[in-house]
Amino acid sequence: MKFSQMLSSCWEKNDSLLCIGLDPTPARFPEKFKTSSRPIFDFCAEIIDATADLVCAFKPQIAYFSSSSAEQELIDIIDWIHTNHPGIPVILDAKRGDIGSTAAHYAKEVFERFKADCVTLSPYMGKDSVEPYLEYVEKGEFVLCRTSNKGGDDFQMLDIGGVPLYIKVAEKVAEWDINGQMGLVIGATYPEELKKARATVPELTFLVPGIGAQGGDINAAVKAGMNKDKTGLVINSSRAILYASKEADFAEKARAEALRTRDAINKARG
Amino acid sequence: MKFSQMLSSCWEKNDSLLCIGLDPTPARFPEKFKTSSRPIFDFCAEIIDATADLVCAFKPQIAYFSSSSAEQELIDIIDWIHTNHPGIPVILDAKRGDIGSTAAHYAKEVFERFKADCVTLSPYMGKDSVEPYLEYVEKGEFVLCRTSNKGGDDFQMLDIGGVPLYIKVAEKVAEWDINGQMGLVIGATYPEELKKARATVPELTFLVPGIGAQGGDINAAVKAGMNKDKTGLVINSSRAILYASKEADFAEKARAEALRTRDAINKARG
Repeated sequence: MKFSQMLSSCWEKNDSLLCIGLDPTPARFPEKFKTSSRPIFDFCAEIIDATADLVCAFKPQIAYFSSSSAEQELIDIIDWIHTNHPGIPVILDAKRGDIGSTAAHYAKEVFERFKADCVTLSPYMGKDSVEPYLEYVEKGEFVLCRTSNKGGDDFQMLDIGGVPLYIKVAEKVAEWDINGQMGLVIGATYPEELKKARATVPELTFLVPGIGAQGGDINAAVKAGMNKDKTGLVINSSRAILYASKEADFAEKARAEALRTRDAINKARG
Repeated sequence: MKFSQMLSSCWEKNDSLLCIGLDPTPARFPEKFKTSSRPIFDFCAEIIDATADLVCAFKPQIAYFSSSSAEQELIDIIDWIHTNHPGIPVILDAKRGDIGSTAAHYAKEVFERFKADCVTLSPYMGKDSVEPYLEYVEKGEFVLCRTSNKGGDDFQMLDIGGVPLYIKVAEKVAEWDINGQMGLVIGATYPEELKKARATVPELTFLVPGIGAQGGDINAAVKAGMNKDKTGLVINSSRAILYASKEADFAEKARAEALRTRDAINKARG
């Protein structure tokens, strides 16, 4: 199934715009994983099983796996989601960006090796650096637009004849997206900019990190970023959910935090 | 040893600004590697041994390894360079760019897992997305500035009050580089822009892809980009050298092409 259809169907079925980011840091896992031979996989699988009916997507961050030489655990966790929770899309957060011949290899890695449904990309190298991903017509791509970190201002807010760079990126992505595959990454920490981007590209879906541990305000972000159907958003929370508790009740507490977050998002949608 | 010192010492010792990019594509390997259990490693090791006295650096492109699940071969090839050709720096071409907490994991992957001496980064997310790499004070970082591909124009040439975005990136990188670790990626396909960047940041080293298969003119690129000492450049060629022949003489032909390229660069330096 197409990524965009999987996402729409989860928005509806789970009544949720919440995406849980899988940023596994073994030092923050509960005690019992210390004896596991595959702690990253085991921890993520428990989180996924405890929260799958509350989300519209899961978003593993590849650096948390590759820094621990855990590629096989990443493959297995994506397979776990597809097998045990069919229909929930997996967004591999990798922020790739390279010339076409190299991008084709990254696309192969993301979509064929890891079998993700969607990937995050960097816009800096322009159109031909995203095209190889678009050839996988079932898959999705979120392109960095206005990021949630402090340094996001350094270039994204530069003024291009009265328009900030991130809006130029939004416009270009909408132009490149001939097949309904693409969206934008826009941080919850900047609701004003979510609003401007929504006005610029009413039809694109936004992946919105920055709530939870990064401090973005859910209500402001949702009101600023949702589309006319009160969807169009994939709102990510990682650490606040994954590490809601370090005790034996971690999965239960993760579910409670996911439920609270989903409901806060839904309240803001109205 | 510091990356910057390794590089300076190879510029001098091998009288070379040439970097060989390791973009291994098994379909393009000579026949004999068809029976190898580790064709990527075996092919790259032969290329390295045939050319190591002609280069200032090797630059493996990580996507060519990860798309083939060849992380261990990447570790082994970097170790091969460090063990058999000590002093030659390895630049891992990965173009990473993410928020600080994630960037710390990418930095760990690049410098601790793969043990590269230097990495390529994307500037789009700003200062805090590069800082975790700078904490490895011995290591180097080349930040994308003006890239050699066609789509490089899409954003890099946008006008910011009379100055193109790539020059703003060059200025910021020079400002961030408090410890002499950083450089810029600027394509050989744009000698005019190499010249402008050199005038803007006289002290930074440029990693220059785009000669060879990508068609950039060596003479124009070197004249435009070199610093006052006639160095300051790491000029990359990948496919033109790796695949100079598909026959049994591939290593010999790779050496001949590397020699020809090094000498053409040196002729341009004057």
